[in-house]
Parts: sequence; C-alpha cells; structure tokens
Amino acid sequence: MTTGHVFIAASLDGYIARNDGRLDWLMKQKTEGEDHGYNAHSASVDGLVLGRGTFETVVTFGEWPYQKPVIVMSSALSDADIPAVIRTRVRLSNSAPEALMKELHAEGWTRAYVDGGKVVQSFLRAGLISDITLTHVPILIGEGLPLFGYLDRDVDLTHVETCTYPSGLVGSKYRVL
Amino acid sequence: MTTGHVFIAASLDGYIARNDGRLDWLMKQKTEGEDHGYNAHSASVDGLVLGRGTFETVVTFGEWPYQKPVIVMSSALSDADIPAVIRTRVRLSNSAPEALMKELHAEGWTRAYVDGGKVVQSFLRAGLISDITLTHVPILIGEGLPLFGYLDRDVDLTHVETCTYPSGLVGSKYRVL
Repeated sequence: MTTGHVFIAASLDGYIARNDGRLDWLMKQKTEGEDHGYNAHSASVDGLVLGRGTFETVVTFGEWPYQKPVIVMSSALSDADIPAVIRTRVRLSNSAPEALMKELHAEGWTRAYVDGGKVVQSFLRAGLISDITLTHVPILIGEGLPLFGYLDRDVDLTHVETCTYPSGLVGSKYRVL
Repeated sequence: MTTGHVFIAASLDGYIARNDGRLDWLMKQKTEGEDHGYNAHSASVDGLVLGRGTFETVVTFGEWPYQKPVIVMSSALSDADIPAVIRTRVRLSNSAPEALMKELHAEGWTRAYVDGGKVVQSFLRAGLISDITLTHVPILIGEGLPLFGYLDRDVDLTHVETCTYPSGLVGSKYRVL
C-alpha cells in the first residue's frame, strides 16, 4: 500500500495555523535561504493528500505551489471549487484514508505527502503514516489548529535526525513504529 | 525580580502526563546514562516552584527528589499534606505568580525552576519565564495534561541550542523574548 509521509511546521505549542487558518506567525520568521528539507521531501513523493482546510488556505497563496498531483480529501467541495488552471493536477476524493491509499497504490503511487491537521490525524489513527518530519517554529501562539489530535492508543516513534537552522527553526524526523 | 526557568519533558504531541498524571510513557523510554541537562539546570536554580498536581505526583515516587527548597502553589493543600520528612524543604504558597516571585526575590532567590503544566502556563502568561528547555519524547500519547495552554498574545522565542540523545529524546532550549 502507498505509505504516508508528514512534513509540517508547527509552533512550539503544537499549532499549524491560527483558528482562522492564518500563518502570519510562521511567515514572519526570518527563514530566507533555509530549505528545511522541503525540496528533498517533495521530490521523494508521488503526490500530495491535503485536507480541505489546507487546500483552501493554499489556494489563497495566488500561485499554486505543487507540481505533483494533489488529492483533496473533501465531501463538501465540488470540482467547481478547483480553479481551472490547476484542475488537471488537483482532484477531490471522499474515500476513507485506507481506501484512498489503496486507490493510490493501484495508480502507482508508492509515497504520499500527507498534509494538514485533520488529515494527518485521521491517517495517523488509521496507521497509514510511516514518518513525520516536524519543524518547530520558535513561537507560542496560545491557540489555533492543532497538529496532533486524539489517538485511541500510543504511537511510538523512532527519532531519525534533527536539524537546527539559523532562523531558530528545529526540524526532527521520526519513523512511526 | 526572580526569573523563572522551565525544564520539562513532553510527548511529541505536547503532553506532560496522561490525564490521571501517569508517566508510564516517559518512564519506559530507554534513557539510561542520559542526563538531558537536568543536573546542570538544577544546580543553576535557587529552588523550585511546583503546582499541586506535580507535587502530588512527585510525592508518590517514594524518595523526594529535590535537595533545594520547593514552593508548592496551592490554596487547597495544608501543611498536613506535606510528609513530615520533607516539611523543612517544602512550603505552600497561594500567592499569585508575580507576588510569589517578588517574595522569593526578597528571600534572595535569583532563579526559580518552574515546573508543572498549569504553573508553567500561569507564569508564562504573567511574563515570568526567561527560558524553556523542552525535551521531546518520541511518542504520541493522544491525550493528557498539556504542557502549554491559552495565551492572550504570541510569545516569541529565541532558539538557544538543541541536543539529541541516543534514546531518541530531543531537548531544545529557548529564551523567551
């Protein structure tokens, strides 16, 4: 089956965005010239699986940042919600996580970049995440959309590596056991 | 005024204990021979400020682990709740965080080790924490007592250093701006 790989930034208190989706606290970091491993990660996957919230935030960026195919997990959106210029690269799915990974496997995907709080949580709960690269941003924002959520069991991790950056960001990669 | 210093371990999803206070997920880590900077941190402070929950957990350990004076922030406990053998080293306070730090300053404390989720949160909100050393444990426990809580403003941090350990624990020190 296709494996899921998380590569995400969070405030030190574990939020990936403010409650309204804003990333101002992340964008203000002085990270010029730092890649945080993003390009190597992107090159390693066959495509992305995003939640609706992440999709709706990314669409506001103006330029679509992904070259690879993107699946948006949503039962609420319709094709009309996808801007025409990216419609060949973005498709909607309302499959459950495991069913989606089987479909992607049948299409030849071996590795999927799983992104967005709720989608990461549901794929973790389904045991579909192989590794997590979590880059902590040196700020506490006090409330927002949490990266992690409820789990019905512990998920043990193996620490693979940690990189620190001049900006103060600290990225750690963990394998999910 | 006396400055507050946090040195604490949390699961990667940001919990310092399970909902009932249990630390089994922490205790099972294979950290033999690793100090994580605890001894140097302890040597650098004049004493500790604990919350009631942390005090009640630590008391169950059997042997009292602290040599330095300990203040327990509680309006619910009375002196009778403190075991006789540690009564010379532990005292209760129901002062507000800022008032307590002024009292401790008057007693000659320059640095206080502030420990426990709710106490760390209230001291952070009051602007009384100078630095945070947060050691992430390679596990997701899904729910529990959170290290951080609501803040009415962002708290910017400066990354000072990060240490990784063979056990997979990753400790990062941040200065509070």
